[in-house]
Amino acid sequence: MSSSYGENIRLTIFGQSHSPAIGVTVEGIPAGETLDLEELQRFLLRRAPGQNAYSTPRKEADRPEFVSGLKGSVTCGTPLTAIIRNTNVRSEDYAAVSQVPRPGHADYTAAVKYHGAQDYAGGGHFSGRLTAPLCIAGGICLQLLRREGIEILSRIAAIGGVYDAGELSASTAEKAFPVVDDAQGEKMRRCIAEAKAEGDSVGGVIECVIRGLPAGLGDPMFDGMKNRIAAIVFGIPAVKGIEFGAGFAAAQLRGSENNDAFIAVDGRVMTATNHSGGILGGITDGMPLVFRAAFKPTPSIAKEQDSVDLQTLTPQKLRVGGRHDPCIVPRAVPCVEAAAAIAVYDALLQRRKEMR
Amino acid sequence: MSSSYGENIRLTIFGQSHSPAIGVTVEGIPAGETLDLEELQRFLLRRAPGQNAYSTPRKEADRPEFVSGLKGSVTCGTPLTAIIRNTNVRSEDYAAVSQVPRPGHADYTAAVKYHGAQDYAGGGHFSGRLTAPLCIAGGICLQLLRREGIEILSRIAAIGGVYDAGELSASTAEKAFPVVDDAQGEKMRRCIAEAKAEGDSVGGVIECVIRGLPAGLGDPMFDGMKNRIAAIVFGIPAVKGIEFGAGFAAAQLRGSENNDAFIAVDGRVMTATNHSGGILGGITDGMPLVFRAAFKPTPSIAKEQDSVDLQTLTPQKLRVGGRHDPCIVPRAVPCVEAAAAIAVYDALLQRRKEMR
Amino acid sequence: MSSSYGENIRLTIFGQSHSPAIGVTVEGIPAGETLDLEELQRFLLRRAPGQNAYSTPRKEADRPEFVSGLKGSVTCGTPLTAIIRNTNVRSEDYAAVSQVPRPGHADYTAAVKYHGAQDYAGGGHFSGRLTAPLCIAGGICLQLLRREGIEILSRIAAIGGVYDAGELSASTAEKAFPVVDDAQGEKMRRCIAEAKAEGDSVGGVIECVIRGLPAGLGDPMFDGMKNRIAAIVFGIPAVKGIEFGAGFAAAQLRGSENNDAFIAVDGRVMTATNHSGGILGGITDGMPLVFRAAFKPTPSIAKEQDSVDLQTLTPQKLRVGGRHDPCIVPRAVPCVEAAAAIAVYDALLQRRKEMR
Amino acid sequence: MSSSYGENIRLTIFGQSHSPAIGVTVEGIPAGETLDLEELQRFLLRRAPGQNAYSTPRKEADRPEFVSGLKGSVTCGTPLTAIIRNTNVRSEDYAAVSQVPRPGHADYTAAVKYHGAQDYAGGGHFSGRLTAPLCIAGGICLQLLRREGIEILSRIAAIGGVYDAGELSASTAEKAFPVVDDAQGEKMRRCIAEAKAEGDSVGGVIECVIRGLPAGLGDPMFDGMKNRIAAIVFGIPAVKGIEFGAGFAAAQLRGSENNDAFIAVDGRVMTATNHSGGILGGITDGMPLVFRAAFKPTPSIAKEQDSVDLQTLTPQKLRVGGRHDPCIVPRAVPCVEAAAAIAVYDALLQRRKEMR
Repeated sequence: MSSSYGENIRLTIFGQSHSPAIGVTVEGIPAGETLDLEELQRFLLRRAPGQNAYSTPRKEADRPEFVSGLKGSVTCGTPLTAIIRNTNVRSEDYAAVSQVPRPGHADYTAAVKYHGAQDYAGGGHFSGRLTAPLCIAGGICLQLLRREGIEILSRIAAIGGVYDAGELSASTAEKAFPVVDDAQGEKMRRCIAEAKAEGDSVGGVIECVIRGLPAGLGDPMFDGMKNRIAAIVFGIPAVKGIEFGAGFAAAQLRGSENNDAFIAVDGRVMTATNHSGGILGGITDGMPLVFRAAFKPTPSIAKEQDSVDLQTLTPQKLRVGGRHDPCIVPRAVPCVEAAAAIAVYDALLQRRKEMR
Repeated sequence: MSSSYGENIRLTIFGQSHSPAIGVTVEGIPAGETLDLEELQRFLLRRAPGQNAYSTPRKEADRPEFVSGLKGSVTCGTPLTAIIRNTNVRSEDYAAVSQVPRPGHADYTAAVKYHGAQDYAGGGHFSGRLTAPLCIAGGICLQLLRREGIEILSRIAAIGGVYDAGELSASTAEKAFPVVDDAQGEKMRRCIAEAKAEGDSVGGVIECVIRGLPAGLGDPMFDGMKNRIAAIVFGIPAVKGIEFGAGFAAAQLRGSENNDAFIAVDGRVMTATNHSGGILGGITDGMPLVFRAAFKPTPSIAKEQDSVDLQTLTPQKLRVGGRHDPCIVPRAVPCVEAAAAIAVYDALLQRRKEMR
Repeated sequence: MSSSYGENIRLTIFGQSHSPAIGVTVEGIPAGETLDLEELQRFLLRRAPGQNAYSTPRKEADRPEFVSGLKGSVTCGTPLTAIIRNTNVRSEDYAAVSQVPRPGHADYTAAVKYHGAQDYAGGGHFSGRLTAPLCIAGGICLQLLRREGIEILSRIAAIGGVYDAGELSASTAEKAFPVVDDAQGEKMRRCIAEAKAEGDSVGGVIECVIRGLPAGLGDPMFDGMKNRIAAIVFGIPAVKGIEFGAGFAAAQLRGSENNDAFIAVDGRVMTATNHSGGILGGITDGMPLVFRAAFKPTPSIAKEQDSVDLQTLTPQKLRVGGRHDPCIVPRAVPCVEAAAAIAVYDALLQRRKEMR
Repeated sequence: MSSSYGENIRLTIFGQSHSPAIGVTVEGIPAGETLDLEELQRFLLRRAPGQNAYSTPRKEADRPEFVSGLKGSVTCGTPLTAIIRNTNVRSEDYAAVSQVPRPGHADYTAAVKYHGAQDYAGGGHFSGRLTAPLCIAGGICLQLLRREGIEILSRIAAIGGVYDAGELSASTAEKAFPVVDDAQGEKMRRCIAEAKAEGDSVGGVIECVIRGLPAGLGDPMFDGMKNRIAAIVFGIPAVKGIEFGAGFAAAQLRGSENNDAFIAVDGRVMTATNHSGGILGGITDGMPLVFRAAFKPTPSIAKEQDSVDLQTLTPQKLRVGGRHDPCIVPRAVPCVEAAAAIAVYDALLQRRKEMR
């Protein structure tokens, strides 16, 4: 089914880049939760375009209207729908893409899938803009999780081959450009600026850490925390890979190196290391849940590219107009947090059914 | 929900390592499909234990009994259930793990999740043995996909830090030890043998390629092919990461390098390169779908490890008895194929609803 | 999950009687379907309030805004959301109901379920007004079904104990007050007028016939056509019962009377009678699918009633203010058609997966 | 999807009348619940054939083997599968039905749906025998509900036009032939005997009452208790209608008659009457939940009937051989209880997610 996620809360994201509005319908949020709508707005601003030099200049208020599900700012228990109007739209920028698809975009696959009826303007439903409603739902979940003592932090782990060093902390996550090592951050920014100057783009890696999770979340075999998180994180455009804990590096370790010894600390079972990333058998073990998501470079670049005319099947040169981020990674940080928050909150509700 | 997958076919895997049987219930397989049960058996044998020097000596027939869903060897359209009896069981090997959890295993998290009522013998429902029913369902899907011209091939891309080279072909996939470069394969095997000799284990990477896919499979935003495949592949125990196409390496590329130019070949739209791994916007573009899954080293090792007694919270030394693979990767190859086949077949049925 | 229906199309209805808007999000409508939005509007008008003497005088345009899922009037394949603004709202009418629940309404049960956080104004999410988005989704499905040769007709089978006679035809279904026997219809209307004059209300029965269905729709055991239709029809407020074909009367027949003999007519298998209501084993047999739904009398009546104050638990006399229908049945006719259309269209998409 | 039910527990029923086994896979039963397997066996015996003069003489042990999900008799939290072997099978009785379908049965619709690949022997997956696994799952839920103070009682409300009188109590429900008025029960039995003597069959009505429910179970709009119960009860073969509380009779009442006044009794909100059947707005109000299901007469009768040859489309006379119940109603009583128990338990788990 298209654009839905979750079993215990269930959200559906709707809208196209240039339709009257985009938005999200969320079922299953318990009644009586007071939402801090200003905090939510601040969270959404982290994702919004036009915030800084290295993101697209398209400026939109991105202020959601809650058309249902709230009474004042308190959830009333029935489905919540929020919409964001599309106001700053320049459809003419995209007139050509239905005919000559942009490399690295969904223009071609959408044309095939929807038999030519796709809404191609601005990428339609495939636009990065659709992560705004993801952040509405995720921002709400983040607030609900915080009430249970669960925090989600993230950082830019790499951009364009420049890697951050050190360990992620709350103070890092609060930075406008969230890296531990600001010198590396500065290199990353230069990397973005260079790509931009050349009409090109760069990708990167985001690391996310979830702290305060109780042990026992997640379900075998296909609803483990890895399955749940991967299933939503791959819904963020441009994600190419995901790894948990030691991830791909674990494939090079010996079992005796990779296994995390159990220890008891202050009457609580913990592990001495955390190669598992806080997940064993798909279930949280009470240690921080750690994952990293790889983002490809923004496919929209100013450089000339090769494509084909879908009607004539003749080669075409293509130069993507419009306004685009030379690197999506900084704006994707809150999207990853939102996705993780939704996955975790869904698992948390699932867990309640097992308790009495 | 526990141990279920799929929207258009839906399978539920049941059983514990030492329960009377393990098995799978599958709904949604169309009626009238003749299954080649001998071919299925050969496929299951690739996963079965005791096949060679580098896998566990536990030998079981692993021959499924189809208790429903077939009339002879033809699907009759209603739910199919197959069971495999557990016969060669030595429960006493596992008596201790409910008290002193094995590092890297689900012993501890299962104990928390199920409030001590978990079936810990042999890892219970978390045993690698539960991949046998996954291979039953997946082996059936592989046969159904082949009728639609879709082939799934895979190889061992790395073991213990030794990487295969070259490009995967059908002849590679048919090898008993599926690597392109047999010299590298020989190094991998030595690597396994060394780890075994030291009472240790190694991990690795499996690469999977799906050929013959039509363009148009997969759904935005959370039912894209990446989401669907990741959601099932992380159900295979020991998987730590997954990446599609260029994957994590894409994060280091420029957009102009990573984008795949569209070309027309013999009246068909293709791409000149395949960094995307055959997926754009979550939807297949008709190129081979490529992904890699990272496996951690088998957590069961003969070496002494540190753990804690869950009752007394005192440190304990632990030596895992029983029979274990020093490297799970060779036997995991058909499991990855099975998982991929199920995800693709489910997407294929979804696609039928869009056609007329 | 709250207010969602369907497996192949999936709709979620959102909104409260007095929230900014009500609406519906629908996933799974195939791309490329041109919607006749004026015809949809005419369909919605049949349900709208204020159409005649025997319905509530609350007048609202009930004109949906399609904020996503369409390109012009053509479906683009991604989730469709339509909203209807709530404009003509008099919340003060309902100030008391959260304290002293109205008999026959959800005021009390919503208060318990949502721990007092329910949006009680106008009945909140439990208002009959929420059938408007049901009719949007259903009206779309009706158009899609017509393209497959499937028609849904219905009539008022009874009101206040007055029963219609004769067999339902298309010309009956098109009447403003759809009964075969207009004399009986006149009696029904008098019955409503009398109840209204006395500050009371009456219930009734709606019969629905679905023609042109192919044999083979519906799935054993819990997704049969009866299960599917009942699961959505009971979502219309005030429905108390549903029966298919001969229904409750079949319980009084002998098998030799109730069984429908198979016959061959013009090279097609049919049945000589249709006590089964077109369903055998949950699956359509190609005969008209017939069901009837019983509606209770509108619970909102002007007469004084007994209730309790939920805080003090003392008895209270209650007189329901506001504007209410003395009989919901005439306006419920399109709601029943909408519900049936959604159930049938969902089954039709399911069926496509079984065909090649 | 075929033969699955539930959102929080999810069961899939598999098997054909003459396949190696029938059974059920259930996910979502919390860990640590001790099952009373002997009590379950007694419950299954109430449904088993061959118990008395008015049911089919086919005798089977109907003793389930639990192949997974239990450790001893305690649930271990992972999917539970139970199978019942089919031992007493006489397939030759059914050789003809794939060619000449039995009136009132699924022979014809199954042939169409499954393109001729259906397992027709003994009715295949459509056999009443498939209610045995329903009773396994339901019998488990009954035990779990009892621990929460919830009881499910039922009675035969009518057979062949003979109606029981009086109000259902626990002592009635425990009778072998559960009617309040034994004189009416005697008439019902005579009615069955007469039909049997004539090679015919009769139908009836079962009433079910669920006591001890907390207020607050059930969800608007399509997961209300009526929707949930109807969606599973129509999965029992031969059910033609369902009504809640006053049901179809409510359609003849005035609002002032049908509304149930709220009263306070011992500090608890109740209603003075219970026309609503314990459900308002789809949500339980704490009063007994009451529903009735209508069963058609058994379609398998010894009398000669008219059918057609599906190949030649010529008329055929048909006499159904095999062993059949002249009235399914007495054996259907535990099936209705099982279905209700599953629906209620699923809603109960859903409710837990809303509590903290």
